[in-house]
Amino acid sequence: MRLWGGRFEGSTDERMADFTRSLEIDRALALDDLVGSAAHVRGLGRAGLLVPDEVEALLAGLDGLRGEVEAGTLAWNPALEDVHMNLEEALALRIGAVAGKLHTGRSRNDQVATDLRLWTRRTADALDAALVRMERALVGLADREGDAILPGTTHVQPAQPVLFAHHLLAYVEMLERDRGRLADGRRRANLSPLGSGALAGAGYPLDREATARELGFDGVTGNSLDAVSDRDFVAELLFTCALAMVHLSRLAEEVTWWSNPRFGFVRTANAFSTGSSMMPNKKNPDAAELVRARAARVIGSLTGLLAVLKGLPLAYQRDLQEDKPPLFEACATLEASLDVMAGMVDTLAVDRAAMGLAADEGYITATAVADALVLRGVPFRVAHHVVGRLVATAERRGVGLAGLEDVAVAEALTDAGDATAARLAGDAALPGELRAAATIEAALASCDVIGGTAPGRVAAALAAARERLAAP
Amino acid sequence: MRLWGGRFEGSTDERMADFTRSLEIDRALALDDLVGSAAHVRGLGRAGLLVPDEVEALLAGLDGLRGEVEAGTLAWNPALEDVHMNLEEALALRIGAVAGKLHTGRSRNDQVATDLRLWTRRTADALDAALVRMERALVGLADREGDAILPGTTHVQPAQPVLFAHHLLAYVEMLERDRGRLADGRRRANLSPLGSGALAGAGYPLDREATARELGFDGVTGNSLDAVSDRDFVAELLFTCALAMVHLSRLAEEVTWWSNPRFGFVRTANAFSTGSSMMPNKKNPDAAELVRARAARVIGSLTGLLAVLKGLPLAYQRDLQEDKPPLFEACATLEASLDVMAGMVDTLAVDRAAMGLAADEGYITATAVADALVLRGVPFRVAHHVVGRLVATAERRGVGLAGLEDVAVAEALTDAGDATAARLAGDAALPGELRAAATIEAALASCDVIGGTAPGRVAAALAAARERLAAP
Amino acid sequence: MRLWGGRFEGSTDERMADFTRSLEIDRALALDDLVGSAAHVRGLGRAGLLVPDEVEALLAGLDGLRGEVEAGTLAWNPALEDVHMNLEEALALRIGAVAGKLHTGRSRNDQVATDLRLWTRRTADALDAALVRMERALVGLADREGDAILPGTTHVQPAQPVLFAHHLLAYVEMLERDRGRLADGRRRANLSPLGSGALAGAGYPLDREATARELGFDGVTGNSLDAVSDRDFVAELLFTCALAMVHLSRLAEEVTWWSNPRFGFVRTANAFSTGSSMMPNKKNPDAAELVRARAARVIGSLTGLLAVLKGLPLAYQRDLQEDKPPLFEACATLEASLDVMAGMVDTLAVDRAAMGLAADEGYITATAVADALVLRGVPFRVAHHVVGRLVATAERRGVGLAGLEDVAVAEALTDAGDATAARLAGDAALPGELRAAATIEAALASCDVIGGTAPGRVAAALAAARERLAAP
Amino acid sequence: MRLWGGRFEGSTDERMADFTRSLEIDRALALDDLVGSAAHVRGLGRAGLLVPDEVEALLAGLDGLRGEVEAGTLAWNPALEDVHMNLEEALALRIGAVAGKLHTGRSRNDQVATDLRLWTRRTADALDAALVRMERALVGLADREGDAILPGTTHVQPAQPVLFAHHLLAYVEMLERDRGRLADGRRRANLSPLGSGALAGAGYPLDREATARELGFDGVTGNSLDAVSDRDFVAELLFTCALAMVHLSRLAEEVTWWSNPRFGFVRTANAFSTGSSMMPNKKNPDAAELVRARAARVIGSLTGLLAVLKGLPLAYQRDLQEDKPPLFEACATLEASLDVMAGMVDTLAVDRAAMGLAADEGYITATAVADALVLRGVPFRVAHHVVGRLVATAERRGVGLAGLEDVAVAEALTDAGDATAARLAGDAALPGELRAAATIEAALASCDVIGGTAPGRVAAALAAARERLAAP
Repeated sequence: MRLWGGRFEGSTDERMADFTRSLEIDRALALDDLVGSAAHVRGLGRAGLLVPDEVEALLAGLDGLRGEVEAGTLAWNPALEDVHMNLEEALALRIGAVAGKLHTGRSRNDQVATDLRLWTRRTADALDAALVRMERALVGLADREGDAILPGTTHVQPAQPVLFAHHLLAYVEMLERDRGRLADGRRRANLSPLGSGALAGAGYPLDREATARELGFDGVTGNSLDAVSDRDFVAELLFTCALAMVHLSRLAEEVTWWSNPRFGFVRTANAFSTGSSMMPNKKNPDAAELVRARAARVIGSLTGLLAVLKGLPLAYQRDLQEDKPPLFEACATLEASLDVMAGMVDTLAVDRAAMGLAADEGYITATAVADALVLRGVPFRVAHHVVGRLVATAERRGVGLAGLEDVAVAEALTDAGDATAARLAGDAALPGELRAAATIEAALASCDVIGGTAPGRVAAALAAARERLAAP
Repeated sequence: MRLWGGRFEGSTDERMADFTRSLEIDRALALDDLVGSAAHVRGLGRAGLLVPDEVEALLAGLDGLRGEVEAGTLAWNPALEDVHMNLEEALALRIGAVAGKLHTGRSRNDQVATDLRLWTRRTADALDAALVRMERALVGLADREGDAILPGTTHVQPAQPVLFAHHLLAYVEMLERDRGRLADGRRRANLSPLGSGALAGAGYPLDREATARELGFDGVTGNSLDAVSDRDFVAELLFTCALAMVHLSRLAEEVTWWSNPRFGFVRTANAFSTGSSMMPNKKNPDAAELVRARAARVIGSLTGLLAVLKGLPLAYQRDLQEDKPPLFEACATLEASLDVMAGMVDTLAVDRAAMGLAADEGYITATAVADALVLRGVPFRVAHHVVGRLVATAERRGVGLAGLEDVAVAEALTDAGDATAARLAGDAALPGELRAAATIEAALASCDVIGGTAPGRVAAALAAARERLAAP
Repeated sequence: MRLWGGRFEGSTDERMADFTRSLEIDRALALDDLVGSAAHVRGLGRAGLLVPDEVEALLAGLDGLRGEVEAGTLAWNPALEDVHMNLEEALALRIGAVAGKLHTGRSRNDQVATDLRLWTRRTADALDAALVRMERALVGLADREGDAILPGTTHVQPAQPVLFAHHLLAYVEMLERDRGRLADGRRRANLSPLGSGALAGAGYPLDREATARELGFDGVTGNSLDAVSDRDFVAELLFTCALAMVHLSRLAEEVTWWSNPRFGFVRTANAFSTGSSMMPNKKNPDAAELVRARAARVIGSLTGLLAVLKGLPLAYQRDLQEDKPPLFEACATLEASLDVMAGMVDTLAVDRAAMGLAADEGYITATAVADALVLRGVPFRVAHHVVGRLVATAERRGVGLAGLEDVAVAEALTDAGDATAARLAGDAALPGELRAAATIEAALASCDVIGGTAPGRVAAALAAARERLAAP
Repeated sequence: MRLWGGRFEGSTDERMADFTRSLEIDRALALDDLVGSAAHVRGLGRAGLLVPDEVEALLAGLDGLRGEVEAGTLAWNPALEDVHMNLEEALALRIGAVAGKLHTGRSRNDQVATDLRLWTRRTADALDAALVRMERALVGLADREGDAILPGTTHVQPAQPVLFAHHLLAYVEMLERDRGRLADGRRRANLSPLGSGALAGAGYPLDREATARELGFDGVTGNSLDAVSDRDFVAELLFTCALAMVHLSRLAEEVTWWSNPRFGFVRTANAFSTGSSMMPNKKNPDAAELVRARAARVIGSLTGLLAVLKGLPLAYQRDLQEDKPPLFEACATLEASLDVMAGMVDTLAVDRAAMGLAADEGYITATAVADALVLRGVPFRVAHHVVGRLVATAERRGVGLAGLEDVAVAEALTDAGDATAARLAGDAALPGELRAAATIEAALASCDVIGGTAPGRVAAALAAARERLAAP
């Protein structure tokens, strides 16, 4: 049976049937479809289009199907192209002719839009919960190992020391923005298209707002042509997934490199590592690599969806069927990635000594030394130049900045072509001050602004995050 | 002079200088940079890092540069790699050594992040205004020609009649969502990263919140590592541009086909058309075609940016320089597309007769006829089947649904295998009722739900849009 | 059992196992894997690493597995992460400890690269055959209906008349280029990576070239690090799929619009059409819409893969596992799209009258009229201008170019500001000549160059295509 | 003046003119356009459509313009929308009315297709030369430093030792494939579309093949509708650029991490490094980072172009104008990236000691030890397990594999549950053999297959590359 058979003679070509079938994908909407149908039935009852007995029979039938779907016992029939036709046919088999009244005042166009918005809403909630779990894992690691000192980098080169907790909290910031985008998109998605019909609006006086309320929507869509062909909410959720995956990919990149023994900063637990079929020595952070790669694939899914939508005339086009594979895949990928990363973070071994050793390289307190000169009145550009020269000298001699002799400091100041600097060259206390500023601890402490890595600031940020994430 | 010359010997390879230079692109940030620098100077003053005279001198210098930039008289020096170095060098040339104190407590990393957020904020506002202009053009056309009757389509095939205004208002819905996304992204972008330093936070006790307030930010970013490497706001604005371009591309697609004489629904004004160098007969809606294509290119720009961000370790990487070309291009494309489409819509000639003629084809009132049967008690599935058969019969005879004889109606009802239908086959009033339901006017009127195409519903929606868009 | 268990304690986290498992995807490589393993076994035998009995036992075991895979009776074990471990384990269960020698001198890295190249090669061949089938469908339609006259368009507006066969042959050109790209990519893919080991080359003196020959490869890869991490051949095949899908999407777009009754040029057979669940009047060319959309999705898959590869250090990274889903999906999509489009083209009804009617609109012979003026000595730019004015006059009067009176022609020539044109204004024969040139037949005949739409040229091109596609 | 003015009244809206203008982009085609025009003029002469004097005058005029373009003295007029109209107008100003005959039998559609194919051909040649330059830089570095020992990695973790030359030659392989793709695409592009007219073929008996030969094309395109709307050659070149950029991005990624002092394997020359505006200690490999990011942007450009082409009906659409910005940008990016990377490689400092130190970590000779056991008859799976256990033991004791005592070896063999292994446990010579196999030198030497890292194999591969790249 085809829902649209009345006018057609001859059967559908098998290639065509295979090509257009969406059942394997849209089966994921089965429960949403049943919930939407039940609300629609009640609406038809309120509008007097169904008598109470019919309403009751249909609701009982839908409820029965819900049980079968949940139990996994419903037999899907691939000859019926999609989940909607499968469910309507199953209903007819169970409750008879009254099932033929279910589709009154409804088209598959507004039906699938409704189902997909219901799916989107609950998936957004699930993703939000997964984001919270991942944030908690990051905060947990920051609690355990956050006072380790990391050589913060820019351009992948050592730059300034930061607390490990500070680094982890950067990811918490990213994920919080992801949550914000998720919430904004959910709000925009949470409107009921039901009653939009095929494109022009339902041909009966349905109370769309009552049905919307019943389904937990915040309101109804405002234009039927738009409502059946709008997939903005799909694109928006896909974008949010893509950006969240990008965030995870950044951490994944760090984990892969930090696991290399040259860094040795972290070590993934065996439970989150794999080996090699050929090399007995290998221990690989495969999950991190896969997260990195899957971020790329979600980007591709977003690209694909936007290219699907480009240039589509109004209203519904069959092209829109291609919204579900990328959306479903991206959401599943994000949720799984968050959970596997959370597990990896929960069990990550941190080698503070290796981090600390690395933080002693690369003259990463040079900025703090320059800042100390500025506090003695040297213009920043001059201070930067002076310290640059000190770094070059120290590098040549193979020592740290704290290992420079007084005379080297004096020379650099004298040669800087700045009056204040020249005057300070004669200040016997200065070299000692600069050596003090060159310690990791002093460098950390100096970054004492909101969002800075000074220990007090980081502790406050961590406490705030912990509180925000505390279970309600 | 290089800002970072102190440690380096030898000069930069010319290929390298050409490859890394961003001046041609980031010159667009000049005014934002000056505004940000002025606020930073006042902040340094408040923190006691500059004396009042220095503050005054720096502010005067920055104000002078602002004048030069606005007048277009500032000479840009390509040997200085970016806009920031150009402005700092220009400042030094004008006010002398005190310019060397401007960069105290600031890195190009937090500087460029600040500039780009200021740019994003004002561009979001400009795009919002352009969206409003385009919506007004759509509403204006709906006011003028909105009661024309369009053969609404799904699958590019005639489906149901709709009012032209209803069709135009579908685009208003899309653009309103674009405005919503723009506002959400603007809110997330409107936080000050200034004071984040290179990555670890500024090394001086700066009051970041005061400076943020002065720059009109809603607050400060919460983590310095994140703040200098966060380009979420770029990605989010790019996504909003891409989706808005997709919306325009849909209208563009319709304009190109509707301009074909087989449709002849619309005709672009000469001022918004082009001809052919070879074919004297041509009049082409080139702007619509370019909008369609540029939607594709903005999708590519978004893709490119997300791929840039994927897998970047913290904190700032030079990769992030590649955020500006796609962002600037996409925003300029969207603004220009909105304006050229608004002009095209404002001057579009509509051929109501051609639309009306087309609306009489394709049995587009069949749904209304089926709905009329349902109101007489026939289950929808049966009604759909009966009318499908009526369409097939009418098509075979080359008549419209209203041209079917009573006996054809009776036959279709009798054969439907449904008791109610069979009973109605003997009802002499029914064929007349169905013929009445088959008129365009009745079909339109029947879609009387919120968001439906019934004239009263469309008028209300149009009035609401007009009011929402009224100048404050 | 994990292939790499020797060094690991503790079990793999379930989230991790689920996240990294590739079995559902790479099962498609099972036969390729068995073929590759058999060749490897023979190579180990030749190298003296296996004794003849071992070779025989392994080959018999592999052959048995081949039978099980082909019969669909092999039980796959999701606890074994991929197809390779499944097959090795299955082999061990069937033939005992000697199975442990199969992986000698091989890593999963060169193994999977070998399997994937074998898959790529046979899939390229299958796609080539599908391209040929589609070309034959196009040529068949051109044979049947090719002398219908189509209003050729540029900018979606009528431009010049063309033969329908000429239009169809444009697609044959595109698909021939796709075949060329497919062949080039196949050639580059058809090298054996077997013997590259994990990354450094096998640790035994294997004769890689002999094994390559046995597997039908054209040669061996030249660098082991590259060989295990090279997925160029995947990207290249994906690109070829994307471009071929773009070609199909262009035809799909035309079919959707041409099916609209305003055009009515073509009508898809019922076997390749669908209806509506709500609108009894609908007949929709869904397959064309889906082809259009799936072209977009394949573009997204290509994007995703390239983004996966970007920035990967040498050699093998687990990211590369993400090559298979987009590749497999894109190839399946292209093959199915070619076949469903071929079926649609084979059964397409063409309405020559509707095409012909449309070809009479839009002054599409204007170019031919201008060309006729040029042959009388008028410079082209002048002729273009004169005919442009004639079109404007005819449009105002609501007639075709052939309906213009002699005086209108004379006026346009006189006013053109060109001596030759002015002289011709007095030539009484000219208006008749121009009216003759304005016929569709004359316009077609005038395009008598290689690749032009003159009937003789099209017939020749069609004959050449028919011959090229004739079964060998 | 507009080339297509004859039929139009009123002027073009300024927004429209700005929006559709392509002059800034397509000026890059000026010389190609002049070359193509000259060949077309000669063709018109041969066809008798121009008399010899006219041919001469036009050729002289075109030659004069060539001089002006090369000298940069031609004044471009933005009011004339593109390069073609600018050149035709400039010609008219210089040689008068005969210029109006230039466009006889030509449309901008076949003209721009011709120009772009000429541009593509010469750009492909330039890119090929740049690829060769980069390959030479890699081979040069391999010559200088290639016998350094690198800890080859998979999953970013140490895997097996490889010669640095072997690693560099992997990139040579990739770039050679890029050259192959470039050549294939060039061949497909090198056909002349001239004579295809606007879409239907030129309306005069032009000898397309003669003109094609004159322009250095290998032949003519076979279908006019396809010829004016085919941008496959653009997509193909863009894809080739994207994949080549991906290859460079992989090396770029390695350079950024290897420059980190934790690795310290390489150090970019000052001429190819930048510093920080705030941190005096920084030396950053910015070019590598930009290459990585620009690879992403070229991927986006390819995506955008494919999305432009998707769903375009035949023949030429204005959408196709959007082919040039992504193509031009991608080719320029690739050429500049190759050159800056070549410069970076030419001047790269390599720290063999740092590499060697790292190669001693991570038990990277474990595979070689397992292979040695296999050569003594232990099945590979058992050998892998035994060595896995030896690695675990060594790791626990903090020693290398060569540091394990005989008894540890014997224990691992005994416990392996394999008869051969158990027997070998009593073989006193074995531990020594295994320790010998565990040296870097032995591990390298053992990979003695084509494409393997054994020194002799690498030397041969390097010699072959050197020879292939030798200047002709």
